Amino acid sequence: EFRTENDKFSLAIQNRIQARYAIPFDSDPRSLSDLERDDSSFMIRRARTRLRGHAYWPWLQFYLQYDWSQPVLRDLTLTIDKYKWAKLWVGRGKVFYNDERVTSSANQQFVNRSIVNDLFTVDRQQGVQVFGNLFPGAWHDISYYAGVFTGLGVGESSNDDDHMMYSGRLQWNPLGGQMPFSQSDIEYHEEPALNFAVAAATNRSRCTVFATDSNSCRDLPGLAAGQDGQYRINQMMEEVRFKWRGFSMQHEMHWKEVVDTFKSQGDPARKTNMMGGLVQAGYFPHYLFPLIPKNLEFAGRYAFVDPNTGFKNDRQQEASGVVTYFFNGHLNKVNFQVSHLTIGNQSNQRYWLQWDLTF
Amino acid sequence: EFRTENDKFSLAIQNRIQARYAIPFDSDPRSLSDLERDDSSFMIRRARTRLRGHAYWPWLQFYLQYDWSQPVLRDLTLTIDKYKWAKLWVGRGKVFYNDERVTSSANQQFVNRSIVNDLFTVDRQQGVQVFGNLFPGAWHDISYYAGVFTGLGVGESSNDDDHMMYSGRLQWNPLGGQMPFSQSDIEYHEEPALNFAVAAATNRSRCTVFATDSNSCRDLPGLAAGQDGQYRINQMMEEVRFKWRGFSMQHEMHWKEVVDTFKSQGDPARKTNMMGGLVQAGYFPHYLFPLIPKNLEFAGRYAFVDPNTGFKNDRQQEASGVVTYFFNGHLNKVNFQVSHLTIGNQSNQRYWLQWDLTF
Amino acid sequence: EFRTENDKFSLAIQNRIQARYAIPFDSDPRSLSDLERDDSSFMIRRARTRLRGHAYWPWLQFYLQYDWSQPVLRDLTLTIDKYKWAKLWVGRGKVFYNDERVTSSANQQFVNRSIVNDLFTVDRQQGVQVFGNLFPGAWHDISYYAGVFTGLGVGESSNDDDHMMYSGRLQWNPLGGQMPFSQSDIEYHEEPALNFAVAAATNRSRCTVFATDSNSCRDLPGLAAGQDGQYRINQMMEEVRFKWRGFSMQHEMHWKEVVDTFKSQGDPARKTNMMGGLVQAGYFPHYLFPLIPKNLEFAGRYAFVDPNTGFKNDRQQEASGVVTYFFNGHLNKVNFQVSHLTIGNQSNQRYWLQWDLTF
Repeated sequence: EFRTENDKFSLAIQNRIQARYAIPFDSDPRSLSDLERDDSSFMIRRARTRLRGHAYWPWLQFYLQYDWSQPVLRDLTLTIDKYKWAKLWVGRGKVFYNDERVTSSANQQFVNRSIVNDLFTVDRQQGVQVFGNLFPGAWHDISYYAGVFTGLGVGESSNDDDHMMYSGRLQWNPLGGQMPFSQSDIEYHEEPALNFAVAAATNRSRCTVFATDSNSCRDLPGLAAGQDGQYRINQMMEEVRFKWRGFSMQHEMHWKEVVDTFKSQGDPARKTNMMGGLVQAGYFPHYLFPLIPKNLEFAGRYAFVDPNTGFKNDRQQEASGVVTYFFNGHLNKVNFQVSHLTIGNQSNQRYWLQWDLTF
Repeated sequence: EFRTENDKFSLAIQNRIQARYAIPFDSDPRSLSDLERDDSSFMIRRARTRLRGHAYWPWLQFYLQYDWSQPVLRDLTLTIDKYKWAKLWVGRGKVFYNDERVTSSANQQFVNRSIVNDLFTVDRQQGVQVFGNLFPGAWHDISYYAGVFTGLGVGESSNDDDHMMYSGRLQWNPLGGQMPFSQSDIEYHEEPALNFAVAAATNRSRCTVFATDSNSCRDLPGLAAGQDGQYRINQMMEEVRFKWRGFSMQHEMHWKEVVDTFKSQGDPARKTNMMGGLVQAGYFPHYLFPLIPKNLEFAGRYAFVDPNTGFKNDRQQEASGVVTYFFNGHLNKVNFQVSHLTIGNQSNQRYWLQWDLTF
Repeated sequence: EFRTENDKFSLAIQNRIQARYAIPFDSDPRSLSDLERDDSSFMIRRARTRLRGHAYWPWLQFYLQYDWSQPVLRDLTLTIDKYKWAKLWVGRGKVFYNDERVTSSANQQFVNRSIVNDLFTVDRQQGVQVFGNLFPGAWHDISYYAGVFTGLGVGESSNDDDHMMYSGRLQWNPLGGQMPFSQSDIEYHEEPALNFAVAAATNRSRCTVFATDSNSCRDLPGLAAGQDGQYRINQMMEEVRFKWRGFSMQHEMHWKEVVDTFKSQGDPARKTNMMGGLVQAGYFPHYLFPLIPKNLEFAGRYAFVDPNTGFKNDRQQEASGVVTYFFNGHLNKVNFQVSHLTIGNQSNQRYWLQWDLTF
């Protein structure tokens, strides 16, 4: 980290490597043929550089993140961080919507996010967000987040129509205050910490789902490629996070409605409804059995996606177990994860071995 | 900035963010349908990192510029800067042709360049340039620039034929010496400074216009995509720049001839002639009315493009006004610009709000 | 180079520019029409940044290399460098196969690699390598390298089938120990150094040749684009390297067999056999004639490729001479190379002028 003498400027550089071996396939299966793939691979899954610091005033903070293995500018934000109760965020980056997405891939409890993420994420967007923390420490300790965005992800510079994306998140922190977006109870909370949140977002554009990529505006499996302004998306989310003495638990439930505005009101294909959710819990058994190394965590997760509530037998499920050894917290860790992945009534196992190193 | 103890090497890193909100559209309209777009957008318009320094000898200077939001290597040059009267430039970067293009997007008076730029720019090229300043301080103070380039922009590594691009610029600095390529009189010139320049360039290739992009060799609107060596381009430019006591004025006039060498001599479609020009002026009113904040500038610009002098009613015009507050000169400023854009006899307004921050 | 006080972390940044002028063409010709190209060009051939250092432990080394002019992550490796006799390499980078490819483009004796390279290289891959040096200094001083990789190059994150690429290299260092992968005897070996090596690799995938590019899995000229798992490649190599008192010599011989597994056993088109080789030698004549500047080297190379041993008159040949002035060893040098390139019985000359600067 560099700092000018008068503390007018500062700059910290951080690099991260995520090396993974996946067998028999890597990406989440969405169809029966996906389940049958046999493409075991070594890969550099993520290769990121982050620049972080402040400029001109200590409260003017910048943050840039680039992934060398997927050349798109992921994050570039200016945050006016003067008042805890109201911060202003300008640029491109993650919408403060749900924990699983906002938590960095470096700070996840598992090797990767659950099968819920790819279909429900609001992802990274370009725009403006206001957020803050009210009544810190009180029983009615509240965090809020509100944003307006172009709504086509990070890969497009111009909007497709004059509709913006709007998002909001409200979080109640009854115990332990506002938790940072970081999974696993590495910090060892002596006192329990508990956060509840709800969030909603709406957008009209040609996209039905987003990815952080130069092709960021994408189509949900089964939906035709959108034309400018064709799809209205309404989505909602409910989330619980809890950490105490090496134990951590979290839960999210997602609803998403895609309205094809080019179809007439009576057309049953006009609306698609989707649902998904996850629950995961982890523990450092050292705190029960001191013989077990202190930095070893075991965790389990169940997640499901119903990609169209109007259809039967299309439910996707994930049941995963992971063992993680934290050499230096989330900065240097090795995970081994087994996932049992089900689509309808067929299933397959996936194994992941990963080393995540930040320096 | 880092420097080795013996001053054999130095390296300075600079980052720049340009965050913009555009309504109802962003890019310059070139057709009637462009004028009717309604795509208001937040965007990270530019996200650049610059490395600058010297290596092995103090006179061997390097400069690299990359834009994270548009992944192409913009500038990478080595300059042998030993003699003021003759410097040698090798690599990839801007041709020293006209002020509007050569001035960094960070040092413009307006939010963006005028409507003239995209169609007349010689842009960035790969090759060699020689330039220098003769008789500094005399009434016949002269700057010259001459270059030879591959002539397909920065996106192609090989030429399409054996014709090179040649460019030359001659500048007379009767008052105040050679001005740097930076707009607005932020420096507050006590004495008037005045520079005249003329420039010319010629190239034969498949390109009729250039952009700094991985697709750098482009076609003018209305011209068919070129084949290898199809188009000969001849262009000329005349430029005046003036700064005095917070007032600044500049003017450019451009001519461009595109010859389709695949058409026979008698064919009237063989040659396309284009014309364009701009005049802009700005002032810091604080110097007249001390109550007005010192760092506030007002400026106006008129620009026109005649994309084909053989056609009528295709004239494109821009009349813009801009208000800029310079927190830290060009390094940290906010602009608000209104443009009245006309094509033939139809027009529309465009509004731009922009924060440009270099650190 | 930066280093934390406890030496837990270190980071060195290195940049490199390779500016080249090529006439009448740049890339190696593979067909008669290639020989007739006339595209003389200035180019930034390479523009690289390297990050190198260690993290958490002195023996955990990282290395990242990016080329700004060709945006793909070239190298990103973690090496556990604790024991000379067994190092573990994880990530993406060059397979330790042959000297010509493994030697950085900055440390070559010529302007560019020979015509053998593009068709026989195993290139960069993603996976794991183990290597080490046994009995250092003894007459049976041995270096070994073994690796397993996904086998589609650096541009693909997932494998196309469940077949991995395997590679091995065995090197005997009878004189002077294990030489680093760096050409020309800049170091001036007082005592002769001699290394012999053999290597082999096998892979099954849709690729028949590799390039470090986002499109890394490529087809040999004359072979149809592959489908998943279509081609089995078996290849072998033999190599000699020698340096003594300003003189350096090296030689490689390559064999490659491409088996189209979709064709039946009896089909004569099922197997394609290729052969290629090079021999090159250089000398700093200053050591014989002290009047000649010390940093001037002359070198010559002969290389040939037989792209299909079943065909006649398709042999490609290169005879090259190069003069190099090393301002600061391989870090700052200028080369001028002439190549006489032959395909069948037609030929052409190619001239290259290049400045390679690392800082």
